[in-house]
Amino acid sequence: MSWTNPLLDDRDVAFLLDDVLEMETLLAMPAFAEHTRESIDLVLSTCRRFARDVLLPTYRQLDQEPPVLERGRVRLHPKMREIYPQLMGLGLTVAPRPKAAGGQDLPLVADTLANAYLVAGNLGAAGLVMLSRGTAHLVEAFGSRALKDEYMHRLYSGEWTGTMALTEPHAGSSLGDLRTTARPTADGRYLVKGSKIFISGADHDLTPNIVHLVLARIEGAPPGTKGISLFAVPRMRREGDGWAPNDVAVTGLIHKIGYRALPSLAIDFGEHGDCRGDLVGQPGQGLHCMFQMMNAARIAVGLASVATASVAYQEALAYARDRLQGRPIGARGGEGEQVPIIEHADVRRMLLRQKAIVEGSLSLVAWTARYADIASHHPDPAERVRAQGILDLLTPVAKTFPAEKGYESNVLAAQIHGGYGYSSELPLEAWVRDQRLNSIHEGTTGIQGLDLLGRKVMAKGGETLRALAADVARTVGQARDAGVSASLCDRVASATCTVVETTMHLGALGLAGDVTRMMLHSADYLEMVSLWLVGWQWLAQAAAATRRLGAARPEEAGFYEGKLCAAAYFIETDVPRVDQLAWLCRSGEDSYGRMKPEWF
Amino acid sequence: MSWTNPLLDDRDVAFLLDDVLEMETLLAMPAFAEHTRESIDLVLSTCRRFARDVLLPTYRQLDQEPPVLERGRVRLHPKMREIYPQLMGLGLTVAPRPKAAGGQDLPLVADTLANAYLVAGNLGAAGLVMLSRGTAHLVEAFGSRALKDEYMHRLYSGEWTGTMALTEPHAGSSLGDLRTTARPTADGRYLVKGSKIFISGADHDLTPNIVHLVLARIEGAPPGTKGISLFAVPRMRREGDGWAPNDVAVTGLIHKIGYRALPSLAIDFGEHGDCRGDLVGQPGQGLHCMFQMMNAARIAVGLASVATASVAYQEALAYARDRLQGRPIGARGGEGEQVPIIEHADVRRMLLRQKAIVEGSLSLVAWTARYADIASHHPDPAERVRAQGILDLLTPVAKTFPAEKGYESNVLAAQIHGGYGYSSELPLEAWVRDQRLNSIHEGTTGIQGLDLLGRKVMAKGGETLRALAADVARTVGQARDAGVSASLCDRVASATCTVVETTMHLGALGLAGDVTRMMLHSADYLEMVSLWLVGWQWLAQAAAATRRLGAARPEEAGFYEGKLCAAAYFIETDVPRVDQLAWLCRSGEDSYGRMKPEWF
Repeated sequence: MSWTNPLLDDRDVAFLLDDVLEMETLLAMPAFAEHTRESIDLVLSTCRRFARDVLLPTYRQLDQEPPVLERGRVRLHPKMREIYPQLMGLGLTVAPRPKAAGGQDLPLVADTLANAYLVAGNLGAAGLVMLSRGTAHLVEAFGSRALKDEYMHRLYSGEWTGTMALTEPHAGSSLGDLRTTARPTADGRYLVKGSKIFISGADHDLTPNIVHLVLARIEGAPPGTKGISLFAVPRMRREGDGWAPNDVAVTGLIHKIGYRALPSLAIDFGEHGDCRGDLVGQPGQGLHCMFQMMNAARIAVGLASVATASVAYQEALAYARDRLQGRPIGARGGEGEQVPIIEHADVRRMLLRQKAIVEGSLSLVAWTARYADIASHHPDPAERVRAQGILDLLTPVAKTFPAEKGYESNVLAAQIHGGYGYSSELPLEAWVRDQRLNSIHEGTTGIQGLDLLGRKVMAKGGETLRALAADVARTVGQARDAGVSASLCDRVASATCTVVETTMHLGALGLAGDVTRMMLHSADYLEMVSLWLVGWQWLAQAAAATRRLGAARPEEAGFYEGKLCAAAYFIETDVPRVDQLAWLCRSGEDSYGRMKPEWF
Repeated sequence: MSWTNPLLDDRDVAFLLDDVLEMETLLAMPAFAEHTRESIDLVLSTCRRFARDVLLPTYRQLDQEPPVLERGRVRLHPKMREIYPQLMGLGLTVAPRPKAAGGQDLPLVADTLANAYLVAGNLGAAGLVMLSRGTAHLVEAFGSRALKDEYMHRLYSGEWTGTMALTEPHAGSSLGDLRTTARPTADGRYLVKGSKIFISGADHDLTPNIVHLVLARIEGAPPGTKGISLFAVPRMRREGDGWAPNDVAVTGLIHKIGYRALPSLAIDFGEHGDCRGDLVGQPGQGLHCMFQMMNAARIAVGLASVATASVAYQEALAYARDRLQGRPIGARGGEGEQVPIIEHADVRRMLLRQKAIVEGSLSLVAWTARYADIASHHPDPAERVRAQGILDLLTPVAKTFPAEKGYESNVLAAQIHGGYGYSSELPLEAWVRDQRLNSIHEGTTGIQGLDLLGRKVMAKGGETLRALAADVARTVGQARDAGVSASLCDRVASATCTVVETTMHLGALGLAGDVTRMMLHSADYLEMVSLWLVGWQWLAQAAAATRRLGAARPEEAGFYEGKLCAAAYFIETDVPRVDQLAWLCRSGEDSYGRMKPEWF
């Protein structure tokens, strides 16, 4: 058919920029002096065109013919060789960085929305942008002058690519147990030795070199996380005027079920005792440095989740408008013509749920980017600190809600296709497979729960959570002023109180020394906070839609009506679960706390 | 490793039979005079051994090398030729039928539990048992003497296999729109013509013949469902002393993402005007007849869902006990040895959730089979009618809860494996793919919701629901007597009231003519009833475990403690959602009711 999947709804993206994200105050900051709503549109239109015309048409090929490992090297699909230079040519890898680093100070809000199209077009291919950006940014932030000269621009430009090499086979998420070592050499460098697993992009045939940012322990360093340092370890190292292999070997290719354009590998550093690396940042500061990249990567995973849910939602929406089947309730018995399945209430339910998840998540991720912009660029240092705190708190939520509910959304998109959605002749099932990884990589959902409750909301005696609650309260006020129904405003306001009170209760448990009990329902706590915050986003959108609706032309009004329906759906259906989750967190319900391994 | 996945927990199956399913009253019925707890154990042990030793070891091969279509015929994996005769040799296909049909009057409860092992071992392969049984049973129930002589024993024995051919490409679930026609011929047979899609087992190389049970419209029959009749259409038909092709052609092989041992096909009947079939049952009674098979198939899908969740749960449990990673909360900083991940509360949460879903669903499906046994065999006709009503009501629930929550359970099993669960080197992802179909085939989840609310609970003025509520109330009483905590008993008792009141409210809407409003939240209604009923099952298990615990030997006590934890988990975490779902059903929340197709 001639229909092309739009990947994201352009009207929704424009709505966020024009009516929800308060871009006028953001763009008023001096750092963004060269950017306007129009210049942002230029970036968006370039990316969305490329995503639709180039990335999406290659998606299924890259999924069906994943990378292969041959004689120790990874060969990507030939299409990747075509796409990759164009993808890097968009310049998004470096655009949000300052001019000094070769960038354009593009607001992360704009960058996020532009990237959403690329990721929706082919998340495996777009993953390379994230890896190159993250590694370059790490070198920019923590590398020596020499390291910057050697690596930074090459990574930002895509001349080389980068990886983040954290995980080891025996330790998984428990980074404190990593065993990779780094022995200082006389010339100030290090001999690195160890095995890593699940390293995305750790080998390929796109660029002449790959820079691995490797967590390792300098010999003699203490055990646990505080003994970990960060090293830049290239695949090929300078030797005289030329380049020599740096003793980095691919030992296995993971047969991933999704994200298949991008290979995930097991690699060995220093198998022959000849792998050289350079320290990035200070000794013992490896995790601190790496978490700059990890935090960005977590938000990028959230964005990838939104994008993967969005492309499937658009596909399901088009199918539901087109596919004739059955008749409305009350017109049974074979009378009349079959209707498009979107006429069935339960199909609309599945579509509206997808819309609520996709557009609510996109809004949350974009607001997270907005806090990141403020944290980096607000002229007032106090505002920067405030925004950084909220950014840190939002990170596990912006990663996890889109990943978990995006998966549900992708499953619904396939479900709407009935038996056809169970066939690999349509891409629905592939997006389901892709989405699955987002609850695992860059910290599983379980780990995000521990991070949110154990670190983020407890930071600064709860001050950050109160700051975020104040921002939510401001939105509730705006929604009331705009005339959004009191029931929706009340639900979000009530959820704010519930979340704050529950957090205080759990914090008190922790202060009293009962950390086990405090943390027992960390998964429920994460879900509670997520529902509250996505409810907040929907209330903000409802307020904006209500303001617009009065003066909307008839052909525009439907879009705002749809926003109000989605807001009502999410706030009436999902936000009330905040109360029940709060009860679980507080009640002492300890079934899996008590459960002994041998009782299963 | 030498560990073999047990597929199901044998202790759990024994617990259901000894303590939960009230087998003594069931086996006291005259029809089951030849069966005892011991004879049932014999059937179980034969099936579980075959499932573990023969079926499971072939599972991954059959998944990875699915059937192929070559020159119009389907070739299955050679392993299927080895397995199939052994599978049919177990005799389970016919065992629950009466002696007159070649069976042994095996209680369906026992049959269900025995089949669970087979399906857990390889659900695609075991699907053939269900198809042969269902088609044979249809011929037994509705076929003429001649049809029975020709087909029934051959299908029950597995000499031939059968299919249910309902779905057509343009109509999907809307059976009233099917276009396949049947023209009477002078010899009392019919010329069948039409296209069907998603027909499981419609071609293969296992047996010399395949009998398709085809829904079609006799020429001149009225439109809609009341014009549909049922036909038996063999692939090869008798011609003189030999066999001739019956103009049944395979037109396509669906590339399914799971259930891959069993092919799903598009087929054409009568492309050359030479496809002969025989009427089964009365003209216009096609749907009525087919729903005997469909209802059994729906419960079989529920059982397949339980089994698929169970095999993955067992795999995750073994992995979590074995895999060392991290340390308990409070012992951070790299001190001490890593612990098995089952020591982490959030991993135990994921395991206990799987246990609650798997064992709660198995219990529900087994109770559904128990009602089926009573409906067929109770000496008192009133009890048979009562049980048949409850069986009908339970069918959409016993299909959907295991399918939907089983999928969640399979995803959790993969999640526990971290990155390894995202690789096709382990079977976790394959079971996730398999499970996905269970929310689609034999009536999607959306259709089950319409069936439950639109037909089942409204039948006989709500009498059936009241009968079921009385059975739940009896369990609540038993639980109180056994000393189960009042909080758990109260939650289930309260959910019973909520479900009954909500149903009355919705029924009143329907009687007042507002069927659209009554049916708007059919999906929420189905989930509400499901949580209530699985809560009921867990309360029954908690009562049984409490009774046992007092006198349990120390090495047995842990099993009962685990049951109590799982019961508490489910009843405290999931059953409270009944209130919120009831509110959605009753409140008039109509976001997707109002939503217009063009507003998305």
